[in-house]
Amino acid sequence: MTGRSRARALGVLVGPLPTGPLNAITDVEGVLVGHTTIDDGAGLHTGVTAIVPRPMRALPAAVHTGNGYGKLVGSTQVDELGVLESPIVLTGTLSVFRAADAVLTYLMELHPGGLSFNPLVGETNDGFLSDIRRRPITERHVLDALEGASGGLPAEGCAGAGTGTTALGFKAGIGTSSRLQVVEGVPVTVGVLVQANFGGVLTVRGVAMPVEELVPGAGRVEPPGNSCMIVVATDAPLDARQLGRLARRAIFAMGRVGASYSHGSGDYAIAFSTASRSPVLPDAALDPVFAAVMDAVEEALLNSLFMATTTTGVHGHTSHAVPYDRLGI
Amino acid sequence: MTGRSRARALGVLVGPLPTGPLNAITDVEGVLVGHTTIDDGAGLHTGVTAIVPRPMRALPAAVHTGNGYGKLVGSTQVDELGVLESPIVLTGTLSVFRAADAVLTYLMELHPGGLSFNPLVGETNDGFLSDIRRRPITERHVLDALEGASGGLPAEGCAGAGTGTTALGFKAGIGTSSRLQVVEGVPVTVGVLVQANFGGVLTVRGVAMPVEELVPGAGRVEPPGNSCMIVVATDAPLDARQLGRLARRAIFAMGRVGASYSHGSGDYAIAFSTASRSPVLPDAALDPVFAAVMDAVEEALLNSLFMATTTTGVHGHTSHAVPYDRLGI
Amino acid sequence: MTGRSRARALGVLVGPLPTGPLNAITDVEGVLVGHTTIDDGAGLHTGVTAIVPRPMRALPAAVHTGNGYGKLVGSTQVDELGVLESPIVLTGTLSVFRAADAVLTYLMELHPGGLSFNPLVGETNDGFLSDIRRRPITERHVLDALEGASGGLPAEGCAGAGTGTTALGFKAGIGTSSRLQVVEGVPVTVGVLVQANFGGVLTVRGVAMPVEELVPGAGRVEPPGNSCMIVVATDAPLDARQLGRLARRAIFAMGRVGASYSHGSGDYAIAFSTASRSPVLPDAALDPVFAAVMDAVEEALLNSLFMATTTTGVHGHTSHAVPYDRLGI
Amino acid sequence: MTGRSRARALGVLVGPLPTGPLNAITDVEGVLVGHTTIDDGAGLHTGVTAIVPRPMRALPAAVHTGNGYGKLVGSTQVDELGVLESPIVLTGTLSVFRAADAVLTYLMELHPGGLSFNPLVGETNDGFLSDIRRRPITERHVLDALEGASGGLPAEGCAGAGTGTTALGFKAGIGTSSRLQVVEGVPVTVGVLVQANFGGVLTVRGVAMPVEELVPGAGRVEPPGNSCMIVVATDAPLDARQLGRLARRAIFAMGRVGASYSHGSGDYAIAFSTASRSPVLPDAALDPVFAAVMDAVEEALLNSLFMATTTTGVHGHTSHAVPYDRLGI
Repeated sequence: MTGRSRARALGVLVGPLPTGPLNAITDVEGVLVGHTTIDDGAGLHTGVTAIVPRPMRALPAAVHTGNGYGKLVGSTQVDELGVLESPIVLTGTLSVFRAADAVLTYLMELHPGGLSFNPLVGETNDGFLSDIRRRPITERHVLDALEGASGGLPAEGCAGAGTGTTALGFKAGIGTSSRLQVVEGVPVTVGVLVQANFGGVLTVRGVAMPVEELVPGAGRVEPPGNSCMIVVATDAPLDARQLGRLARRAIFAMGRVGASYSHGSGDYAIAFSTASRSPVLPDAALDPVFAAVMDAVEEALLNSLFMATTTTGVHGHTSHAVPYDRLGI
Repeated sequence: MTGRSRARALGVLVGPLPTGPLNAITDVEGVLVGHTTIDDGAGLHTGVTAIVPRPMRALPAAVHTGNGYGKLVGSTQVDELGVLESPIVLTGTLSVFRAADAVLTYLMELHPGGLSFNPLVGETNDGFLSDIRRRPITERHVLDALEGASGGLPAEGCAGAGTGTTALGFKAGIGTSSRLQVVEGVPVTVGVLVQANFGGVLTVRGVAMPVEELVPGAGRVEPPGNSCMIVVATDAPLDARQLGRLARRAIFAMGRVGASYSHGSGDYAIAFSTASRSPVLPDAALDPVFAAVMDAVEEALLNSLFMATTTTGVHGHTSHAVPYDRLGI
Repeated sequence: MTGRSRARALGVLVGPLPTGPLNAITDVEGVLVGHTTIDDGAGLHTGVTAIVPRPMRALPAAVHTGNGYGKLVGSTQVDELGVLESPIVLTGTLSVFRAADAVLTYLMELHPGGLSFNPLVGETNDGFLSDIRRRPITERHVLDALEGASGGLPAEGCAGAGTGTTALGFKAGIGTSSRLQVVEGVPVTVGVLVQANFGGVLTVRGVAMPVEELVPGAGRVEPPGNSCMIVVATDAPLDARQLGRLARRAIFAMGRVGASYSHGSGDYAIAFSTASRSPVLPDAALDPVFAAVMDAVEEALLNSLFMATTTTGVHGHTSHAVPYDRLGI
Repeated sequence: MTGRSRARALGVLVGPLPTGPLNAITDVEGVLVGHTTIDDGAGLHTGVTAIVPRPMRALPAAVHTGNGYGKLVGSTQVDELGVLESPIVLTGTLSVFRAADAVLTYLMELHPGGLSFNPLVGETNDGFLSDIRRRPITERHVLDALEGASGGLPAEGCAGAGTGTTALGFKAGIGTSSRLQVVEGVPVTVGVLVQANFGGVLTVRGVAMPVEELVPGAGRVEPPGNSCMIVVATDAPLDARQLGRLARRAIFAMGRVGASYSHGSGDYAIAFSTASRSPVLPDAALDPVFAAVMDAVEEALLNSLFMATTTTGVHGHTSHAVPYDRLGI
C-alpha cells in the first residue's frame, strides 16, 4: 500500500464520460497487464510492464510517433501490415533490446515452428533514478511480466516500467484509465495505459502546478530522454488506419497535463483493437471515440503521477511525489 | 474599429516569453500579411488572407497534417523538396482552387518564363455563415490580398479568410501572435497566424468556457468541416526537417484552447524560415523554439476569438463573439 | 486512326497473366474513362483525362508519392480517410486548379446540398509541347471528359491529358492495361491507366533503346517537370492501407521501362477498389495482386509510348514517336 | 577463395559511371566494413555485417521503408532527428535484438557516461538455410564485426550477414559497389552495401534468368521473410531529407534485378553522408547522385549473387549459386 490515491478518488474528474468498472485498460475484455518491478532501494529503479491481449492473435493496430527521440522496436512492421502480433512490452531505454529478445522467447514458445515474429517493445529513459548502464532487465523479468499478466486493476505509479520514471517535474510511473461510450448503438470501451516520463509543467484541470512551487527546495527535474509511451486498447471494431487516428489523439492529449513535447522526448502511442471483425465503424462516427481516448489519456497520466511515491535513486537523485493535498483539489 | 480586444490587452498572458513589437507574424522580418474581406451583410462572409515572404524566394519549409480532412494545395511538393516557393494563401473551402489558380497568376507574373510553380493554399469550411456554394472568391480578390500585403499588425477576427469562421462554439477568424527567444546566443523571432474554425470547448488559461454557459440561448455551433490552418514563420535558421518538428508543435498547441481534434477537421500547420542560411540550429537547442511556437499558437487562437464580432450569415445562422467580460479574466 | 499499335499487338507480352477483355482500366467493372483532347496543330497540345467510378460513391483508396515534385490535389484527405469520393482527373500542370474547380462544379451538381468535397486531380508538365502558360483548360473541357466517360477501350497515346506528354525521350501520352488473377478463389481484375511524362531511357523487355540511337538526329528530350501519374483500379476487396501497398508497387514498376526517377518528376500513384465490401483479402494473399499491378503498369507505360504519334508543338519542339519497327521486336 | 567473380569481372557493366578504386562502399572515405561469419557446415549459416563510419559521430542520415515486413531497430529516431549516431549492423532476423544489445555495449564503451544511444540494426530472415530459432549471434560476434571493420574490399557473397541468404531463387549474400560522380564541380563518391534475401526472378541487364531454367532440378526457393537491406554511403554534402530521396531510389533499383517486392519482404534502405558540412548540394543537382545510387545498388545486388556459393543448410535445404557461365554474359 502506497497510501496514494488515484485522480478520481481525489475528485479530479476528467470529462463527462463514465469509466469502466476498473477505470483501467483491463476494462477492455481480454486485455491483461503484468508488471515486474525492480527496486533495490539504491541505484536500481526500473522494471517491465506487459500489456497482453489474450488470446494472442493478429489484432488491428497502429503506431503514431509524436516525437521520435527513442525506440519503438517493431514499429515499421505495424505500419506496413496494420497488425499487432505480440504483447506490448515497456521497459527502460538501455534494456529495450534484451526485453525484445525475451519477447521473442515468449513468442517462439507460443509458436513452436515459427520463423518470423515482430515484438513491439517501447521504452523511456529512467536514467535519472536508475543506473541504466547496468542493463538490469533479464529475460526472466520479462517472462514474469508476460506470464503474470492478469485482469484486475494494474498497479500504478512506481510499478513495472514506471518504477523509475519522472514526469512534469514529479515522480511518475504507470497510469491507467478507461472510458465507456456508445457509438452507432454499439457499446465501446476504450482503455489506456501510460508510462509517463516527460517534461513540462504539471497541469491539473487547466491549472499549472510547477514543482518549484509545490515542493519547497525541489529543483526542476528534467530527466535525460524524457519520454512517454501510451497504449490505447479498445473493443471498437476499427481498422489500422482508424487506430492511427486514435493514436494521434493520444499524443495530442499529453498537452492537457502540461507536456512540453520537448526535443529529447520519445512520445509514442500504440493503439489496437480487440475486435478483429468487420465491418469497422464509419470514420464519421469516431468523434466520441476520440473524446474517450483523450480523456482516458489525460486521466491515466494524472494517475501515473498521483499514485507514485517519492523516490531517491542513483547518484542520490530524488523525484518527489505530487503533494496533491497542496493542489487545492 | 470593432471595439474588441486582443487577449493580452485583456490580461490573458500566455507563457513567460516576450512578444515581438506587434505581437504578430509580421514581427518576423520580411513577412507581410494581406486580407481581402468579403462581407455583404447577408449570405457572404468569407475572404482571403495572404502571408507573403518578401522578397519571394525558396525558403525552407514543412507542412504537418494533424488531421487531413481538408485540402492543402501544394503540400506534397513541400514534403519532397522542403521549400516554400509561393506566398501562403488561406480562404474558404470551395474557393480553394480558384484561389490557387490566382496564386499561379501572381507567380507567373513574377517569373515571366517560368513553367513550374507550387502555390501553397489552405482552406477551412466557412459554410456555416457563408454561402460557399457560390464560390465567391475571384482572382482579383486573391491578387488584392497578395499585392496589398504589408507589415504592421494584421487585422484579426472577422477579416480575410477568417470572416466567416467559427471555433470552439464562438465566432472566430484570423489571429496572430509572436514570441522572442534567444537560442544559442542568437535572437530568434517566431510569428504565428491562424485561421480558426474548429470544434471543442473554449478553454482560456485552462478554464473551460462552454458557449452554452456564456451565451444564454446560444446553441453549440459545430460548423461543417471545422478546421484550423496554422502558419508559423521564424527567422531562426532551420531546415525543413526541423520546421516539420515546429509544425507538429503548432498542432499540439491547439489542445490548449480546447480543440477537440474532431474527425471532420482539416488541421494543418505550415512552418517556414526566412533564414535560408546555414548552418542551422542544432536540434538539441530547439526546446525554446518549440515553447515559443506553442505559446504563440495558443495566443493567436485566443486573439482570433477575442477579436471577432458576432456575425449572422447564411440561413440566419449566428455565431456569437466570445463575451470576454463574462470570462472573469 | 493513328496507325499505331499497342505493345501486345507488336508481340511485347509483359508477364504471364491474362489481360481483361479490353486490356484496359475499363475492364474493372464500373470504371469509365473520358478524354478531352486539345490540339490546335500549333502551340496547344494538352487535355483532360477523367477516370470515373460509376456510380460515384466513397471507395477505399490510397495515394503514394514516389517523388513529390508536382501536385496531387486532394491527396491529404485520401491519406486521412482512405476514401475516394471524386472522379480522378488528370491534366497539364498549370491547369490543375481550374480542372479541380471544374470537378467541384461536377460534384456540387451531383450533391445539391453538399458543402464538402474532395476532388482528386493530378497533373504532369506538358510544357515542352504545349504553351501551358495560357492555361487553356476550361470548366467545359473537364465536364466534357467527365460526362463523356464511358466503358470500352480508352484512346491511348496523344489523347486527353497525354496529348502533350513525353517520356523516356519519346512522344508518350495515355496508356492503359489490365490483368486478371484469382486470389483466394476470387477472380480479381486489376486495371491501370497512366499519364506518362518522365525521364529515363526507354527499356522494352529489359533492352534499353535510347532515343539518340533510334531516331537519328533527335536530341534527348527532357521536359520540364517530367512526371508520371498512375491510376490503379481493382475489384479486389482491399482497404486503404492495402491499396497503399499496391500504389507503391505501381511506382516501383516505372523502373521496368527505364524511368530515371529524376528530381523534377512528380511520380504519383492512386489506387482504389470498387469492392467496398468487407472482409478484405488477407495481406498474405496479395503477392499475385502486386504482380498484376506491376505488369499492368509496365504494359500501360509501353502502350502510352507505342500508341503516341510524333508531335511538333510550341517553340517548334518535336517529340518523336517510338519507331517500334526498329526495335527488333 | 571462392572461385567466384564479381559482375564487372564477368563483363556485366551497370551504367556508364566509373566505380571507385575498390568498387565498394569502402570507397567512401572513413567507411569501414566488418564481417563475422558463422558457418558450421550444418544447420548454421548466418553472421553479422557492420558498416562503421570512422570516426563515429552524428552523420546526416535517413531511412526509407520500401516494404515494412521486418525490423529496422532505431528507425524512428533517424526519422525524427535525421542523424546516424551508431554503426549500422546487419544480421539474421531472430538475432536482431541481441545484435542491437551488443551495439549498445559498443556505444557505451565509446561514450562512458552516455545514457542515450540509438543503434541502427537491420535484419533479413536467413531461416531457409540457417536454424534461426537457435539465435546463434552473441555479443562477441557483433563486437568482432565492429572492431574488425576495415577499409579494403569487403568479402561478398556468403559472408557476414549474407552467409545464409537467398535472393531471386539463388544463393545470395552481401554485395557492394560504388560510383564516382562530379556534382556542381565537386567530386562525389557513392558506395552501397546490400544484404540480399528477396524474391523475384533474376534479371541481368534486362534478361530474366529463372532458377528453374538455369539449374536443372532446382526448385524455386522462396525463403520465409525474404527481404533486402541496402546501405548507401556518400561523401556528398546532403541533409537528411535529401538522403531520404537517395534511399527511395535505392529501393527503386531493386526492380532492375527482378525483385518482386513481395508482401513478406522487409525492404529497407539506409542512406548517410560522411560530409556533415553545409551548405548541402541543391536538390536540382541530385539527378547524377540518384543515378549513381541506382547503378551501385544494381551492381551490388548482382555482386551479392555472383560472389555467393552453393550452400546446403538446415533441413537439407540447398540454395544454388548463380551458374553465370550459363548466362551467356
